[in-house]
Amino acid sequence: MIQLTNPEKSQWAKLTKRPSLPSDDLQSKVGYILDNVKTRGDEALTEYAQLFDNVNLERLQVTSAEIQTAINSIDDDLKSAIQLAKQNIYSFHASQKEDAQIIETRPGVKCWRKSVAIEKVGIYIPGGTAPLFSTVLMLGIPAAIAGCREVVLCSPPNNEGNIHPAILYTANLVGIEKMYKVGGAQAIAAMSFGTETIPAVHKLFGPGNQYVTKAKEMALLHGLAIDMPAGPSEVLVIADSTSNPDYIAADLLSQAEHGTDSQVVLLSTDADITQRTLLALNSQLDTLPRKLIAEKALEHSYAITFEEMDCCIEFSNFYAPEHLIIASENAHQYIDRIINAGSVFLGNFSCESAGDYASGTNHTLPTSGFAKQYSGTSLDSFVKKITFQMISKSGLRRIGPAIEIMAEAEGLMAHKNAVSIRLKSQ
Amino acid sequence: MIQLTNPEKSQWAKLTKRPSLPSDDLQSKVGYILDNVKTRGDEALTEYAQLFDNVNLERLQVTSAEIQTAINSIDDDLKSAIQLAKQNIYSFHASQKEDAQIIETRPGVKCWRKSVAIEKVGIYIPGGTAPLFSTVLMLGIPAAIAGCREVVLCSPPNNEGNIHPAILYTANLVGIEKMYKVGGAQAIAAMSFGTETIPAVHKLFGPGNQYVTKAKEMALLHGLAIDMPAGPSEVLVIADSTSNPDYIAADLLSQAEHGTDSQVVLLSTDADITQRTLLALNSQLDTLPRKLIAEKALEHSYAITFEEMDCCIEFSNFYAPEHLIIASENAHQYIDRIINAGSVFLGNFSCESAGDYASGTNHTLPTSGFAKQYSGTSLDSFVKKITFQMISKSGLRRIGPAIEIMAEAEGLMAHKNAVSIRLKSQ
Repeated sequence: MIQLTNPEKSQWAKLTKRPSLPSDDLQSKVGYILDNVKTRGDEALTEYAQLFDNVNLERLQVTSAEIQTAINSIDDDLKSAIQLAKQNIYSFHASQKEDAQIIETRPGVKCWRKSVAIEKVGIYIPGGTAPLFSTVLMLGIPAAIAGCREVVLCSPPNNEGNIHPAILYTANLVGIEKMYKVGGAQAIAAMSFGTETIPAVHKLFGPGNQYVTKAKEMALLHGLAIDMPAGPSEVLVIADSTSNPDYIAADLLSQAEHGTDSQVVLLSTDADITQRTLLALNSQLDTLPRKLIAEKALEHSYAITFEEMDCCIEFSNFYAPEHLIIASENAHQYIDRIINAGSVFLGNFSCESAGDYASGTNHTLPTSGFAKQYSGTSLDSFVKKITFQMISKSGLRRIGPAIEIMAEAEGLMAHKNAVSIRLKSQ
Repeated sequence: MIQLTNPEKSQWAKLTKRPSLPSDDLQSKVGYILDNVKTRGDEALTEYAQLFDNVNLERLQVTSAEIQTAINSIDDDLKSAIQLAKQNIYSFHASQKEDAQIIETRPGVKCWRKSVAIEKVGIYIPGGTAPLFSTVLMLGIPAAIAGCREVVLCSPPNNEGNIHPAILYTANLVGIEKMYKVGGAQAIAAMSFGTETIPAVHKLFGPGNQYVTKAKEMALLHGLAIDMPAGPSEVLVIADSTSNPDYIAADLLSQAEHGTDSQVVLLSTDADITQRTLLALNSQLDTLPRKLIAEKALEHSYAITFEEMDCCIEFSNFYAPEHLIIASENAHQYIDRIINAGSVFLGNFSCESAGDYASGTNHTLPTSGFAKQYSGTSLDSFVKKITFQMISKSGLRRIGPAIEIMAEAEGLMAHKNAVSIRLKSQ
């Protein structure tokens, strides 16, 4: 990790720039995949499975028998752990339900909002180095609470033609019925346009590599919605003299092991804590199976010592981290000053892993500084909030004249007339 | 209007396709404007004002003196009307505030969400045929309630170098301090990248022509957020034997006068009501100043008679209209069956104009079928909902073992270790 002390504000923009991968001709490669799947449907998906997943698939959809086999293959301990996580995630997301609250802005003018599930949603779960069944919980549970009518899951098969059993077990647990063995940009294409087997959806969710990310971005232009723009995962830890260096080191590494493009940042007002954290980091690093990945991530990560907590908070808001850990016994004091962050972990025992798996909060969060504008995934992400209004004759009499004046001032006489014709006939 | 009776479902996809303008080389034209403003800032904006608005601007920012002149020039009647609308819009949007609700998913595991304003937002208000000061209310009021620190407004000047006084009056009324005389794609560019005079923002709001729309779409790729994808305005009216043909005709025309690319759709279970509505439509049309625009819009609009109300509702959900008027005395019966719509107007006295101006609901709504996935603008659009968690030692003891098991099953040992190291030291 790079070490800095009290960097000038003029340097902050450079420091908060995230590492990025070269994108080459991503656009044209992904564009070709999208077109091919749109035109040739299942046939193209089967060819891509041969090409990218090295497997001949007889059918794309996961069968009930395969789901049952997966369920049987999962240890009871893991099942219990997933169920505990499910309960907590369910409680937190169910609390986000919003009852229609009727506001009578004037007597006879009733307005309200009603949350209605997005009918069809698609969930992409990557294969690759980690079978992210936890993401199935994070997306499948709010989709179920919202009441989405059709939830489609795509995940790449291994070279034996199977999706990881923990993904199938978890998907089944949260009530997802349609699971397909399709990975990469071609999965995004299938859920965007629909194929003979895979239904088209209205909104796409889930993480993925740069091909998946680009495909989701391009799906936007085809009328789909997506959860949020994606980028490499990141954590920013704010430490002071009450922090525990061993804990911080473990938190930094838990982020660094995600990918070589992950970034971890330590801000501290205590130079001694910083040094002890970096020592702990090096010693913990040696024990990790994903050491090489974490080491790469640490190369473009940094530790900054600031004189004041104010500077740490200000820098953090400027960085807008996906995950923010305030590893201080006084963390609660800073809550009202956090402006930009995806999810915030307060105190020495709120480790990021807790939010990643089981505390109840969602782990699909805005990265790359998008926490300035975007919220993490929540129940909101799976509903539309439709406004309703019911205006009585007398209600229209109260607000009608104002509408007539405003419409006329905007030069929209038919807008005015829609009121006038009703007021006249009363 | 085209008339149809009981069209087959196989025709629905074609019927619900929206009229679209040819986009030519929009992408490259707008791309050039974005680059030019990014590189040359205010100088480029001043040149574009000469080129597109036919005016030499000495300064881009609206002065306090200009605002005062605008305030003085507005009739008291219009001021009162705008103030009434402001109060209603304020009441409705203030009711959307969400207090942090702390959920203890397990004893010692506290999770909550907190709404935090997006710091910097940009509002674009078109000039052109109608001075949309009502849109200033719809965007400025929730921005103020949210507590956005910097609200920037851009609107094109006329050829005397002034923004329409009703826009300035309204912007001042809702507390917007930074107003700039910049229109079109160049305004979107200025708010995206910032110039010497105009601050860069995090999220862009507001309607516009196809250049503005394309510029907003391209701003997404530069890390901005936008309110929603845009398209021509539209209304779908569902009528039955309890509807008033004169009112419906007025509502259809109030939408048709927006633009030649607007679309209006009438669904009815009563052929007589349909015929009487079309007659009323023709007679009301003759009196409209914007008759030519409305006539063009009606050319690609249609009236469908269905046998059953069920079909009307199903077709409406398939169409996903921006505005849905259920012009029936029994409108409330259908509320729970509305799945896709931006804003719904119930009964014979809830005209769309009411929601456009003064009832309290927002008029910035998803068009072109995007009501399947997107909500209209609301207080939510101006905040991020940041999740927080505070886990105690004993709380971590309760959920820690599940996290360890799940992290290990995902192959993420550093994630596991962040918990283990804390549990061990207790």
